[in-house]
Amino acid sequence: MNQKAIYAGTFDPMTLGHLDVVERAAKIFPELVVAVVAETGKNVLFSQKERVDLVKKSVKGLTNVKVTLFDGLLVEYARAQGAGVLIRGLRAFSDFEYEFQMALTNRRLAPDIETLFLMPKQDYSFLSSTNVKQVASLGGDVSEFVPPAVLAALTRKLKR
Amino acid sequence: MNQKAIYAGTFDPMTLGHLDVVERAAKIFPELVVAVVAETGKNVLFSQKERVDLVKKSVKGLTNVKVTLFDGLLVEYARAQGAGVLIRGLRAFSDFEYEFQMALTNRRLAPDIETLFLMPKQDYSFLSSTNVKQVASLGGDVSEFVPPAVLAALTRKLKR
Amino acid sequence: MNQKAIYAGTFDPMTLGHLDVVERAAKIFPELVVAVVAETGKNVLFSQKERVDLVKKSVKGLTNVKVTLFDGLLVEYARAQGAGVLIRGLRAFSDFEYEFQMALTNRRLAPDIETLFLMPKQDYSFLSSTNVKQVASLGGDVSEFVPPAVLAALTRKLKR
Amino acid sequence: MNQKAIYAGTFDPMTLGHLDVVERAAKIFPELVVAVVAETGKNVLFSQKERVDLVKKSVKGLTNVKVTLFDGLLVEYARAQGAGVLIRGLRAFSDFEYEFQMALTNRRLAPDIETLFLMPKQDYSFLSSTNVKQVASLGGDVSEFVPPAVLAALTRKLKR
Amino acid sequence: MNQKAIYAGTFDPMTLGHLDVVERAAKIFPELVVAVVAETGKNVLFSQKERVDLVKKSVKGLTNVKVTLFDGLLVEYARAQGAGVLIRGLRAFSDFEYEFQMALTNRRLAPDIETLFLMPKQDYSFLSSTNVKQVASLGGDVSEFVPPAVLAALTRKLKR
Amino acid sequence: MNQKAIYAGTFDPMTLGHLDVVERAAKIFPELVVAVVAETGKNVLFSQKERVDLVKKSVKGLTNVKVTLFDGLLVEYARAQGAGVLIRGLRAFSDFEYEFQMALTNRRLAPDIETLFLMPKQDYSFLSSTNVKQVASLGGDVSEFVPPAVLAALTRKLKR
Repeated sequence: MNQKAIYAGTFDPMTLGHLDVVERAAKIFPELVVAVVAETGKNVLFSQKERVDLVKKSVKGLTNVKVTLFDGLLVEYARAQGAGVLIRGLRAFSDFEYEFQMALTNRRLAPDIETLFLMPKQDYSFLSSTNVKQVASLGGDVSEFVPPAVLAALTRKLKR
Repeated sequence: MNQKAIYAGTFDPMTLGHLDVVERAAKIFPELVVAVVAETGKNVLFSQKERVDLVKKSVKGLTNVKVTLFDGLLVEYARAQGAGVLIRGLRAFSDFEYEFQMALTNRRLAPDIETLFLMPKQDYSFLSSTNVKQVASLGGDVSEFVPPAVLAALTRKLKR
Repeated sequence: MNQKAIYAGTFDPMTLGHLDVVERAAKIFPELVVAVVAETGKNVLFSQKERVDLVKKSVKGLTNVKVTLFDGLLVEYARAQGAGVLIRGLRAFSDFEYEFQMALTNRRLAPDIETLFLMPKQDYSFLSSTNVKQVASLGGDVSEFVPPAVLAALTRKLKR
Repeated sequence: MNQKAIYAGTFDPMTLGHLDVVERAAKIFPELVVAVVAETGKNVLFSQKERVDLVKKSVKGLTNVKVTLFDGLLVEYARAQGAGVLIRGLRAFSDFEYEFQMALTNRRLAPDIETLFLMPKQDYSFLSSTNVKQVASLGGDVSEFVPPAVLAALTRKLKR
Repeated sequence: MNQKAIYAGTFDPMTLGHLDVVERAAKIFPELVVAVVAETGKNVLFSQKERVDLVKKSVKGLTNVKVTLFDGLLVEYARAQGAGVLIRGLRAFSDFEYEFQMALTNRRLAPDIETLFLMPKQDYSFLSSTNVKQVASLGGDVSEFVPPAVLAALTRKLKR
Repeated sequence: MNQKAIYAGTFDPMTLGHLDVVERAAKIFPELVVAVVAETGKNVLFSQKERVDLVKKSVKGLTNVKVTLFDGLLVEYARAQGAGVLIRGLRAFSDFEYEFQMALTNRRLAPDIETLFLMPKQDYSFLSSTNVKQVASLGGDVSEFVPPAVLAALTRKLKR
């Protein structure tokens, strides 16, 4: 029985939707690793260090949650960490095709690692990092969408 | 941390897709209850007792799996059992609307109980009990779709 | 410019999701008819009279909303009423196929009548009458899902 | 190379959408069998004989199209007919889950028979037999939805 | 009752699908603003001025329609304009996830502004600006896809 | 009756999913052209020549299959080749919106050419070229995802 779980993502930046998934997963699994993807191949607003720091500040207080930076294939990282479960948030507005394709690819590469989907709080179902950055960059108020540390960082970043 | 999980369904009859979900969940959760819905409000081919027996025969050997019959509201049954996790199989061909609606209704009724979705083996993604009964009733071979005990029972049932 | 709108449904019974659609539409359109389908071809829990009464009690106070019972083709009823707009609630968990098929059929039958979709409050996105009846019949608490008058009626109905 | 194709359905009754699929398929495949399902397990408006007759009248003039009645498992019927292709119409409003599940079940039962999907004319994408019967039974004009023979039969049937 | 409506988009360039939405909305709402997004963050083929001009030429004759250029957050622009309704075209081939996410984000930012979806003419359901530009750039005939002014502009633009 | 079929794509690089579609189509249609899109407008990993070569090596032995490079509008290329059928693979995880939009655009541009969809083997339903390149670039084993010639080429390409 392998109950170490990994929740991986770019977290550019972490939203309240991500945080909600972390909190739910941390209630079920004894050990949860939030793994921040180092190289995303996409333009990111926040650096690796910033993304990790913002996740760390946001999950502070959840004692069974660890935040790491990782590179390479997720399933190999999971194995190296001794984790048997990958967590994904599945929103009503998720890109199911992408989620399923990724889960099946991962299963093919590592049949011993299981992907579990959970639903974030309904209030956050429309939230995405892209969304948050877009609204913030247009001057909209995102204080209800992100943890306080992220709000402060976004404000600083977009002021420059 | 509540790691007792429930996988509920009509199981009329259990398919290899259901069994695959049970096996995957039993690798992650220390205790798994397969809960057979007593009153389905639908026409069933197999009686309550038959459905429970066929699930029991199919999951034999999985030592952390218990099979029960239940009636009433699933979340209340989960609470009575002391379970904190509901398991659902999510196939590429699932009825997402139905699955999400049920998960959200259950969360509203019992915020302390989490629904987790996992993907059955790709080979079984097209399988459903309805499907199996239809093919079998038309004389098709369903030996690749159901556990041996179910195959035998289906053959007996449809011969009559 | 025809701004008389119709919101039709079985309302067996009206939920807070339906009521939310009515309230939103009533803020946009000067006249809104909530049209209760008389013959549904399905088994209904509440009689025609009961369904109309429960809608009436629920929308009381909305001065530009009228509740009626109708039979026959919706677009012909709309024309008879002099309405140019059909309102539909579109939830994340809607059956889009059904909604679109109905809207296109109606447009084909009556090109002068437009279907407008609006989204009910996110909190109610999982709600449906079927859902409510099922939970209530299993003894679940549906007080957060339906208007007070409907709650009372459901309690009376299911006690019998 | 097996180019004999089968297009199976309940055809209760045939719509212009079905006819469009037949016409498109008949341009590609040298032999096309339109196979009317005898026992549907659902309430049908038209008898087996009526459904076959209405399809026959509708496809008259298409010299490479044959209309038959069949019972049992579709893939076995296809084999008995020496057909290697099953045709399905895939509308924007199709029930993909159902279509894919059926296609995969059929492939599992008969790997030598291929399901090909084609899109009916966009104008007919909202059409279904259920739809047509519903509109017609409520007194709506369905002359743009069905072939002339079906229109006449519907009118007679619903008058009674 | 706020019946001023806004239909916003990049319109790079306007298609007959967009125009159809404008015409339908202009029949329902007394005032309609077609708001062209100034900065799109994407590569555009047509400049701000060109996009506005092409929309203006296309909607000429619709006396209750005004065309504007806007920058920043749509809901704030709507408020500044005194508009209470946002119009979106919802095609069978829409990206529902995106549409719903945007509508819910907007509702969260401005609960007083309602998003209404309407369906463009079925014939235009496959149309998108991207689509039109791609076909035109490959030398295909797009005269059935765009208003005359846009066709002329596309021809000039792609000749260069 | 026009039975010459075209299966077009970027093939950057060909996967076992693509190859499966080719093999299935080659069993149904007497002549099949696999048409490699020359200019994709996207960043490609493999050059035109490499993509064509890898397809050629992969389909070797299928005597009714020809591999070509093409530029411009697909339907015009099809006409120039005298082909009447376009083949598309439709996976459970396909982007239906994109597939349908493309098929309808093509039908509008060339009503005489029919798009037929077929389902690749279930095992390959999660496969895409993007997917394969991503896994390979992260050092994952893709030998079960691509034909041998592509595996060798990927290894060489990514080593550099």
